[in-house]
Amino acid sequence: MAAFYLALDLAGTFVFALSGAMTGVRHKLDIFGVLVLSFVAGNSGGIIRDVVIGAIPPLAINDWRYVGVSVLAGLVTFYRYPNVDRLRTPVLLCDAAGLALFAVAGTSKALAFHLGSVAAAMLGMVTGIGGGMARDVLTAEIPTVLRSDLYAVAALAGAAVVVMGHKLQLPSAAATIAGAILCFGLRFLAIRVGWRLPTAHETKPSPPNVSNCGKPET
Amino acid sequence: MAAFYLALDLAGTFVFALSGAMTGVRHKLDIFGVLVLSFVAGNSGGIIRDVVIGAIPPLAINDWRYVGVSVLAGLVTFYRYPNVDRLRTPVLLCDAAGLALFAVAGTSKALAFHLGSVAAAMLGMVTGIGGGMARDVLTAEIPTVLRSDLYAVAALAGAAVVVMGHKLQLPSAAATIAGAILCFGLRFLAIRVGWRLPTAHETKPSPPNVSNCGKPET
Amino acid sequence: MAAFYLALDLAGTFVFALSGAMTGVRHKLDIFGVLVLSFVAGNSGGIIRDVVIGAIPPLAINDWRYVGVSVLAGLVTFYRYPNVDRLRTPVLLCDAAGLALFAVAGTSKALAFHLGSVAAAMLGMVTGIGGGMARDVLTAEIPTVLRSDLYAVAALAGAAVVVMGHKLQLPSAAATIAGAILCFGLRFLAIRVGWRLPTAHETKPSPPNVSNCGKPET
Repeated sequence: MAAFYLALDLAGTFVFALSGAMTGVRHKLDIFGVLVLSFVAGNSGGIIRDVVIGAIPPLAINDWRYVGVSVLAGLVTFYRYPNVDRLRTPVLLCDAAGLALFAVAGTSKALAFHLGSVAAAMLGMVTGIGGGMARDVLTAEIPTVLRSDLYAVAALAGAAVVVMGHKLQLPSAAATIAGAILCFGLRFLAIRVGWRLPTAHETKPSPPNVSNCGKPET
Repeated sequence: MAAFYLALDLAGTFVFALSGAMTGVRHKLDIFGVLVLSFVAGNSGGIIRDVVIGAIPPLAINDWRYVGVSVLAGLVTFYRYPNVDRLRTPVLLCDAAGLALFAVAGTSKALAFHLGSVAAAMLGMVTGIGGGMARDVLTAEIPTVLRSDLYAVAALAGAAVVVMGHKLQLPSAAATIAGAILCFGLRFLAIRVGWRLPTAHETKPSPPNVSNCGKPET
Repeated sequence: MAAFYLALDLAGTFVFALSGAMTGVRHKLDIFGVLVLSFVAGNSGGIIRDVVIGAIPPLAINDWRYVGVSVLAGLVTFYRYPNVDRLRTPVLLCDAAGLALFAVAGTSKALAFHLGSVAAAMLGMVTGIGGGMARDVLTAEIPTVLRSDLYAVAALAGAAVVVMGHKLQLPSAAATIAGAILCFGLRFLAIRVGWRLPTAHETKPSPPNVSNCGKPET
């Protein structure tokens, strides 16, 4: 069972590492930069979670298999970029699966460390989206996980199911599987159907320097 | 007293979360992205401080009220953006108040965890400016808190007063209030009068690629 | 011996802080923003390492000398920017020395905290490159350490030598010196000779929106 779980976790890491490597190749990083970005994309979510809940040192750096899987994804992408790029739809589905898995696994780990319901759900979401956020921050872009079709919200929904199952003392396997299915399903449908969350209407066009630190208008 | 303190802390979180939400709306994030940015702007400073001093798990994720207040600020901004945007001067004043409060509260917490004087003052400053920095990093901008009218330096000044009061064994309430007033006053005057710190003169125009990693000139 | 070691560590901090301050001046930050960026560039690598291995609070904020050295580098750069800018080749060499030192020192500290081989080598690399990464993230640029001539890989090579020496139970001083020389040598040669790691060939031009979150092609 633990072996099965580890295999799923490593599979999720591999898929996210692929997305990091593809971003690195597109930004013309050299091979080592690509590998760093692979690792960052595959493992940042888990590292942030582990630091915040006090699981020191984080699993992702203390177990060489996470590094190995990330490096493998980076090398495959680097040397076979056109092939990986062509597999975009399968990669998207794997990415949705990785998101679902990371979200429920992160939530379970936070609950095991006795965090509260809200904290556990949030950390589950962070486990799922943290890698993509770190990847985009390192390439100086606004994280796509904050903008794209139901990405973060799908992770949070899956995490919330796990937390509710824990509260209601349901069997944890059942809640975990239900949460993962909900997260994957939401994300899958969002991709298929093109669901998007609303954005706000800026009825009054803002002047150019509207930072909260400008001087007050007089 | 603790309730009063909590209320102030939540008020500061609310104001910073407003600034995060406004940034999110301006960058056309969807509603969930806006909420994430609200939370990040309202709580990153405190989370960084708590991780660094070992207060695990960080209060901001373990107490649902911080999440609740951040989400509220995000929703208000999302659905009433023009109204919030029009309130810019009051928001700026609230932001200065939030900065003052976070700076002194962060310093006090660091002192309570037995950090040294320099560390406590720096962590007070980080508590005040961390949210704004994280907000700007996530939107791929250079943090305004590093550039605008006496922002970070006001936070540091307020934090330093708290540390000095602690060293001189003054009553902590007095030092805290004095620090908060100093920080707020500096920031308020900077906004009113347009005070700015100097920037360096680049007398010799730099060539375009002057990163410290270019090859030496030969 | 400890004093010698501390002196080297502070020297590395100073050099990295110089690079942060120069970046700040180029981005027209005010003096306080320059000082913050100095501190960030000089100390982020060590702070990340300390948080991840559980050495709380991080040395860099708990020992005022690290702050002092960073501020000194910031002030020198701010008031003597053209002079510092002209010293680019010496600064590059010092930077390579700082990288070498941080990489081996970070690895040694991680080993002393009983981390595994892979984790220790990675944390050594992070200690070396973390400051430069944080500096570039705060100025909304893609980290040069992920792109430039053998930067991160030199740090990792030096770290790996320290780990191997530890595994083979060689005298730690010997392994540390060998690792530092290897890192410095690689970086020095890369600068001199213009060595670069390969970048991937994108044979098929990618369509503009190739993020992993776009909809699948139909």
